[in-house]
Amino acid sequence: MSVNFVKCNSVLITGTSRGLGLQMVKHLVGISERPKKIIATARNPATAQELQQIAKSHAEVHIVPLDVVNDASIEAAVQKVSSIVGPAGLNCLINNAGIAIMSDLNSETRDGMMKTFQCNTISPLFITKAFLPLLRAAAAVCDGGAMSVNRAAVINMSSVLGSLQLNWGEGAATKLHGYRVSKAGLNMVTRSLAVDLQPDGILCTVVHPGWVQTDMGGKQAPLTPEESISSLLAVVSAE
Amino acid sequence: MSVNFVKCNSVLITGTSRGLGLQMVKHLVGISERPKKIIATARNPATAQELQQIAKSHAEVHIVPLDVVNDASIEAAVQKVSSIVGPAGLNCLINNAGIAIMSDLNSETRDGMMKTFQCNTISPLFITKAFLPLLRAAAAVCDGGAMSVNRAAVINMSSVLGSLQLNWGEGAATKLHGYRVSKAGLNMVTRSLAVDLQPDGILCTVVHPGWVQTDMGGKQAPLTPEESISSLLAVVSAE
Repeated sequence: MSVNFVKCNSVLITGTSRGLGLQMVKHLVGISERPKKIIATARNPATAQELQQIAKSHAEVHIVPLDVVNDASIEAAVQKVSSIVGPAGLNCLINNAGIAIMSDLNSETRDGMMKTFQCNTISPLFITKAFLPLLRAAAAVCDGGAMSVNRAAVINMSSVLGSLQLNWGEGAATKLHGYRVSKAGLNMVTRSLAVDLQPDGILCTVVHPGWVQTDMGGKQAPLTPEESISSLLAVVSAE
Repeated sequence: MSVNFVKCNSVLITGTSRGLGLQMVKHLVGISERPKKIIATARNPATAQELQQIAKSHAEVHIVPLDVVNDASIEAAVQKVSSIVGPAGLNCLINNAGIAIMSDLNSETRDGMMKTFQCNTISPLFITKAFLPLLRAAAAVCDGGAMSVNRAAVINMSSVLGSLQLNWGEGAATKLHGYRVSKAGLNMVTRSLAVDLQPDGILCTVVHPGWVQTDMGGKQAPLTPEESISSLLAVVSAE
């Protein structure tokens, strides 16, 4: 299975200054089956040097500032993206930005849980709501077609730690209560979105990237960003 | 199956000014197999007239103020409950207080989701953390005994709306995104607590009360509070 976005006009990825978001941009610009427009967002793009370098040598990469917990920032991003994609709309929104606060039962705080929930659970919902006109425009272009990233899709980055069933025995070794709750919540957000947006022909799903060697995952993780993202994008773009 | 708390020294129920919490207190004081001490908490007990009436005629009912989203209020309640239960500790904590904001994809707001999450998901975790010394004391009294409400237990009031699996087809007719997410999150909180507190002999579980004719459930609900709570307490107190 290979990564194939050749029929996809535009992809927007949040949180691309580093980690898995940056790796998605790097992977897409490196293949010939890339989308025509890759919109890479970051809270503070000025400090995202590697992303800036990529954009300089790849005209299909458009960097847009987006702070996922700030509704004014989201609205400004929608305006910019609208002018980039035009009447074709936005085909694929990947809500990748997220945080994890190391914690267990003793160290977990209300503030930490609220911040994690705000960023990981609520923001993907409100970003999706804000980009809905652009997603609906894209879905309408191939009215009646199958649901896919080539038509209109919302891909939310969840985690195996959001699974209730697996939070037992060995699967419960990683505590991270706030992160687990935020991803269980994101799974519910996505399920509700999938129901709400099915009539529009917009696919909504979650993906688990694996445990990856990023700033969040740490060096002891078994997967490299390249391994994780090549598989993830292949699954997401499969027809 | 009948409600039987006769071997249970103390039960604490949050949110007892009305609805299902009030019904739990009413049911327990009406049976001979009641716990020795029923601690009924409410954000503002002075306005809970029916609860006050019950406490006047039932010496086993102790009313304690508790605002579940306020950590100072939780700490003050722990001190009061500690003096009520003494060295026997607290056997059964029922995290019942909760809110629901009517909403769908269009009307859902960040603030509404954050408030619902704070009250329904995070507060049961932090109330449990605060009462842990009293729960551990109760569990230690019958060291080695089976896990039950007669030893030490945390019962969290969840909802069928927190089920991912059932949020599809007819099951998805009720939108309430924020409430659904908060209950999916509460299920995860409880699963993590169950893992963390198993070594202490403290049972942690969620229950679904059904759709009930309360201020929250509305008049069109199929179950009366009496029907819901008599079944729920029978399940919870089954050995």
